[in-house]
Amino acid sequence: MAAEFDIETLKFDDAGLIPAIAQQHDTGEVLMMAWMNRESLKATLTTKQVTYWSRSRQELWRKGATSGHMQTLKSLRIDCDRDCILMLIDQIGAACHTMRRHCFYTDVTNGNEVELISPMEP
Amino acid sequence: MAAEFDIETLKFDDAGLIPAIAQQHDTGEVLMMAWMNRESLKATLTTKQVTYWSRSRQELWRKGATSGHMQTLKSLRIDCDRDCILMLIDQIGAACHTMRRHCFYTDVTNGNEVELISPMEP
Repeated sequence: MAAEFDIETLKFDDAGLIPAIAQQHDTGEVLMMAWMNRESLKATLTTKQVTYWSRSRQELWRKGATSGHMQTLKSLRIDCDRDCILMLIDQIGAACHTMRRHCFYTDVTNGNEVELISPMEP
Repeated sequence: MAAEFDIETLKFDDAGLIPAIAQQHDTGEVLMMAWMNRESLKATLTTKQVTYWSRSRQELWRKGATSGHMQTLKSLRIDCDRDCILMLIDQIGAACHTMRRHCFYTDVTNGNEVELISPMEP
């Protein structure tokens, strides 16, 4: 039994945004977290090309539009509270603007910052 | 070369919070996303028992304190923008308050809501 998905049932914050986590679909790596508004979420679902909302530029941000590091949507999931999105995606190249595969490359578990991965070759 | 981690270098939002993603350390499953303030992050790093900030109750929320579904921290990472946390953890039982293993059990990729997993047996 499947109910039709209604974007208005999601809980967007006061700025009209919802956090979206991108996970590489086959390896399980968590690549990045960014924000979506209604328009970017609709674009992502329609085109299967992941599109965020850039809070700094205040504009739609189709991931990889300039860098070529696009994200193709495989599956989009929402959480129990309907206030967070998890996307399984296929990432081309680096998810991170630092040219690293993912953004979570700094470990701080034991009181020190340790860099886990280096930037990819261009 | 490891620099000492200073919590004040993180970017907390206007409410003093930062999003924290919990990922099962050995399977790679993304279990949930919740929020931390400085105090909960410090408690998490010190005790290795994951502690969030409950926005609804406005109090520290040591995950599993009442349910027994605790999360033991294995590794805590921050992203390039220093405004999001990824934790590799070991989850006892259900991460979700619905008694499901994880919170992202609703798939909406193709226009319909599809429930991916059922609640665990008590």
